Amino acid sequence: MSASNVRTMIWDGKALKLIDQRKLPVIKEYVTCDSYEKIYSAIKDMVVRGAPAIGVTAAYGVAIAANQFNGNSERDFVDFLEKAIVKIGSSRPTAVNLFWALRRMRKTITDLKGRNIEDVKAKLVSEAVKMEAEDIKINKMIGKNGIQAFSDFLNDKEKLKILTHCNAGALATAGYGTALGVIRSLAEAGRIENVVVDETRPYLQGARLTAWELHEEKIPYFIIADNMAAYMMSKNEVDAVVVGADRIAANGDSANKIGTLGVSILAMHFKIPFFIAAPLSTIDINISSGDDIPIEERDGNEIRELMGKKIIPEYMPVKNPSFDYTPNSNISAIITEKSVIKNPFKNNIKELFK
Amino acid sequence: MSASNVRTMIWDGKALKLIDQRKLPVIKEYVTCDSYEKIYSAIKDMVVRGAPAIGVTAAYGVAIAANQFNGNSERDFVDFLEKAIVKIGSSRPTAVNLFWALRRMRKTITDLKGRNIEDVKAKLVSEAVKMEAEDIKINKMIGKNGIQAFSDFLNDKEKLKILTHCNAGALATAGYGTALGVIRSLAEAGRIENVVVDETRPYLQGARLTAWELHEEKIPYFIIADNMAAYMMSKNEVDAVVVGADRIAANGDSANKIGTLGVSILAMHFKIPFFIAAPLSTIDINISSGDDIPIEERDGNEIRELMGKKIIPEYMPVKNPSFDYTPNSNISAIITEKSVIKNPFKNNIKELFK
Repeated sequence: MSASNVRTMIWDGKALKLIDQRKLPVIKEYVTCDSYEKIYSAIKDMVVRGAPAIGVTAAYGVAIAANQFNGNSERDFVDFLEKAIVKIGSSRPTAVNLFWALRRMRKTITDLKGRNIEDVKAKLVSEAVKMEAEDIKINKMIGKNGIQAFSDFLNDKEKLKILTHCNAGALATAGYGTALGVIRSLAEAGRIENVVVDETRPYLQGARLTAWELHEEKIPYFIIADNMAAYMMSKNEVDAVVVGADRIAANGDSANKIGTLGVSILAMHFKIPFFIAAPLSTIDINISSGDDIPIEERDGNEIRELMGKKIIPEYMPVKNPSFDYTPNSNISAIITEKSVIKNPFKNNIKELFK
Repeated sequence: MSASNVRTMIWDGKALKLIDQRKLPVIKEYVTCDSYEKIYSAIKDMVVRGAPAIGVTAAYGVAIAANQFNGNSERDFVDFLEKAIVKIGSSRPTAVNLFWALRRMRKTITDLKGRNIEDVKAKLVSEAVKMEAEDIKINKMIGKNGIQAFSDFLNDKEKLKILTHCNAGALATAGYGTALGVIRSLAEAGRIENVVVDETRPYLQGARLTAWELHEEKIPYFIIADNMAAYMMSKNEVDAVVVGADRIAANGDSANKIGTLGVSILAMHFKIPFFIAAPLSTIDINISSGDDIPIEERDGNEIRELMGKKIIPEYMPVKNPSFDYTPNSNISAIITEKSVIKNPFKNNIKELFK
């Protein structure tokens, strides 16, 4: 099912096996989720992360919940599934794809009202499998549209040096990736000179996950500490920036991993195109601007400790906002599976959702 | 001798004891340097860091070298000292205070030509002791001038939220600090609401050293990952930025810890005053602009490992520039012991060095 050398999730017909992204690249280990409670914990504790990957995982979570149900009453079954959906939905507040996937599963349940419970169970599984396949297909279309976006903003520059922040790769999706899908797609066309990988504190998704994916794909790259991005831009090491998104407001303001806002401001300063790559399911047309996107604040120990190593004593106060949002004014274009959205974002997004 | 609760260096009459800044704040341990070779290693391996602290340490290194000499020939003595000076000077390329301190010690040697070797030895020790005392005095004057700079640019705002990057504190100097000296000085005047501390990858001088100093001084603060600075600025958590410098060109371009350039661009974007605090010895009038400041590139393993914990495999390429320079156009003012230097920096620096 995967579209790259990296397998984020494996559905074995009963359980979802998720590669433990907290341990990569040093340890390659899968966590088996055979209950929706385990799916909830895997999302909450970041075994799996990345908005599209969380969405597909959540869909499998509902399918697994259905299989956990042993009774005969349709009403009990629906109540049980609703409880599971609410629980899974409480795992990460910022990723809109999570809610999008749960809504779609809920609709599947509603549409099958009155049908045999076993049929519903089978249908929920096939719906999750379908969403996984769709996600990969969408990513490939984003990759294709990405090539167009780069041509539009970089005058068909042949060899590109691209900076990315966090991991919007195969690991953040069902496979292939959004931002890293665009990079994969450019690499397939022989157009990548180098990828500058922000390490992305505190969780190091860049240094651990993006670097590992690029290594597996044999795409040239080097890792930098987040605070080196301005220096690299000042030394002409960056032609363009491409990142993913966890939620995009109706006006194009885009929430993504903490640090993205800073990179977008640096890119503007150095007149470097800044692209968001994300599926349409990331756009939340019910939210008018970035100010209304809830920002998850995570435990301070994620800053105090690094992969189990204590670096800062407990008594020291830290802040750990996990996301920020980049105003539409800092964004050159949003690359989706359908089209490349440009300024004016508000109107163009409205047109797209008509 | 120290002007704060933090003792960076202790001269015991024979050897220089340096607090091991690689281990703070978890372990408080002093490294005893009783030879100039040990002084060289302590600077190179970052037992001691911070431009002014490196300068004073280097001066003690020359005094220690003098005491290591056992012969009677003045010529051999001078040759030995010159060898020690060259060796110590090769430890860190960016910190200009290192060369400034060594020049001053070399001048002391030249001025005492023909004098008894024991007299020269004693004089070199007293010169180093004097430089340590002077550094603390200078920092206190920088602190005093800092209050003026804040008044000029922040309309006498009473309570201040200040962001700082890296450590330009007591630990980076003989005591009190430059940027942190300004913060100490504002705190003594009851004007600090909060200090936002960039953790400062890869060495975490912010999270480990600045946070520890602020804790010891009971000044309110919290630590953030470097990539959270833009978010904090966007949420009005930062009224001003103050940082140190390792070398300042004749036009005001200022080299400082990697990441400073990025912070300066973010501050400009959010219309937040950005101050450099540094002694006049940091200004290198022989260098016309930041482009001519040598930037030290350190070992990639400083990124791959964190306090001994391996986070990225050896096979992954990394870049580790240790400094960047901030163009004078991004700087609101340079706070020195003599005055607050404002735009036009080139003319005003020229005037100051007349």
